[in-house]
Amino acid sequence: MEIFDKNILSKIEEELNTHIEKDDVLYKASKHLLFAGGKRIRPYLAVLSYLLKKDDIEEVLTPAVAVELIHNYTLIHDDIMDNDDERRGKPTVHIVYGEPIAILAGDLLYAKAFEAVSSIKNPEKAYEVLKVLSKSCVEVCEGQAMDMEFEKEDYIPTLDEYFEMISKKTGALIVAPIEIGAIMAECTEEERNALYEYAKRIGMTFQIQDDVLDLIGDKKAIGKPVGSDIREGKKTVIILHALETLPEDKKAKLLSILGNSNATDEEIKEAILLLNDSIEYAKDIMKKATEEAKDYLKIFDVEKRKRLEAIADFIIERVY
Amino acid sequence: MEIFDKNILSKIEEELNTHIEKDDVLYKASKHLLFAGGKRIRPYLAVLSYLLKKDDIEEVLTPAVAVELIHNYTLIHDDIMDNDDERRGKPTVHIVYGEPIAILAGDLLYAKAFEAVSSIKNPEKAYEVLKVLSKSCVEVCEGQAMDMEFEKEDYIPTLDEYFEMISKKTGALIVAPIEIGAIMAECTEEERNALYEYAKRIGMTFQIQDDVLDLIGDKKAIGKPVGSDIREGKKTVIILHALETLPEDKKAKLLSILGNSNATDEEIKEAILLLNDSIEYAKDIMKKATEEAKDYLKIFDVEKRKRLEAIADFIIERVY
Repeated sequence: MEIFDKNILSKIEEELNTHIEKDDVLYKASKHLLFAGGKRIRPYLAVLSYLLKKDDIEEVLTPAVAVELIHNYTLIHDDIMDNDDERRGKPTVHIVYGEPIAILAGDLLYAKAFEAVSSIKNPEKAYEVLKVLSKSCVEVCEGQAMDMEFEKEDYIPTLDEYFEMISKKTGALIVAPIEIGAIMAECTEEERNALYEYAKRIGMTFQIQDDVLDLIGDKKAIGKPVGSDIREGKKTVIILHALETLPEDKKAKLLSILGNSNATDEEIKEAILLLNDSIEYAKDIMKKATEEAKDYLKIFDVEKRKRLEAIADFIIERVY
Repeated sequence: MEIFDKNILSKIEEELNTHIEKDDVLYKASKHLLFAGGKRIRPYLAVLSYLLKKDDIEEVLTPAVAVELIHNYTLIHDDIMDNDDERRGKPTVHIVYGEPIAILAGDLLYAKAFEAVSSIKNPEKAYEVLKVLSKSCVEVCEGQAMDMEFEKEDYIPTLDEYFEMISKKTGALIVAPIEIGAIMAECTEEERNALYEYAKRIGMTFQIQDDVLDLIGDKKAIGKPVGSDIREGKKTVIILHALETLPEDKKAKLLSILGNSNATDEEIKEAILLLNDSIEYAKDIMKKATEEAKDYLKIFDVEKRKRLEAIADFIIERVY
């Protein structure tokens, strides 16, 4: 079994193409990142969640794609906020089109996402999808704001705050498509709840694995130098755990390297050594969460749940 | 009869307050402009349109306020795009909170608007409102992009393009609340259509009167120097009409002043003199549109339609 079914992915791609239909500069800017090779994991999750109980895949494509549109709007705006010049190996939208058009391109994708929801044929389902998607949009903004707070040099969030931040910033747009799949497939309350618990966990592991890969991944595979997060002073779960558990002298050493954009490779290695136990801690959290996530799927058909199980494993095994 | 009913306006204000409920920096930034004294004309139009056929005003407040949230998100983002430092006599959101938080504050209001729609109790009505609001959000982005194209010095749009631009940029968020009022009040197809035609026209006059006031308004009342649009080279209906109708020598004269940010008051006066016939043209359009708009209301109860009629007149008679 291929985890990522090419047939489903190409249907998602086709559907996406129908939503950004014009070709003027605003629409070009809106398509720039959208068609720069995203993995489509979010709409794919919506489809997989839907396929647990129904098989008329056409029904779920539109709301599935709505989440991808929202995801892309957040990336365009985040790149402006973070002043990032590159994403997916291409110059960011504001670099190519300028900031005003980039802000507007994000705003257009935002509108197109809700327009997609409004084109769901069944009003009751559209209503439920709207509830989920608008709530997740609020959360994404709140999570992004928390993340910006965390970036302040003298602010050390607690682990609880960290988990709240990633559950909003990253988790919300993983949970949303899975819930949307459940809504479109008319899942029972119990089924929907199980999928929600599954989604919460893989949303979390998705972010934590990114944090782990930054420290122990392959430079080439992850597309940036190992330890970038240390140089940027990012407060990941690993860093926060280390700051809570390291003895004072080691903590001081770590803090002296953290956020130093000129740290040498030697210093980065030293920091990663200090983070060893915390990396294990993060891996333990992910393993536990992944097992729990898969347990929640047990109420579904053993064949039909296979891909969602595989995705839970894939998230923490991936090297990029 | 007061055109603006204080009781309704205070209910709108109360309702708005419930939607932006937290108090961290993101929410503060989101409230900065929202509670800086907007006229609430959009939610007010939703309520008036609703009251034509129903009187349970509580039912329409939430979707009415959704439009105001969208309107405010567009203002925050527009101010960033246009690099404007002041609005409603206060520093703009990005001046106070910085651009990243300002972008995010707009994004949050956007989400809150659709969350408001999702909290409409009747799913069928929520579904219809979603269709209207998401479509108008697409149009606002398209209109803003057109307006940015118009700003290019060597680009002279046709009058048709101008009317398309204002119908999207300004009109969409005047039409939307009126349609939303009609949906919530369960208007018939015929009633909804009449309100739509009314709304299209007052959306247009709303923008044109702004353009007229810039030229013949009172500096104090409009809060900016007379002729600002000329110095900025804005392509208003008046300018475009003049460029289409003036003889070559006068057209050349006008073009020599248009867009010259250092134009003297004397030159501005000269330009306005050249624009005289075009100002009359704009006034004629508005008068005709206002009469048509009021005619469309004739199918409604004579008492209940009075405020909407008064608003149509007010828009073209206002001096600020």
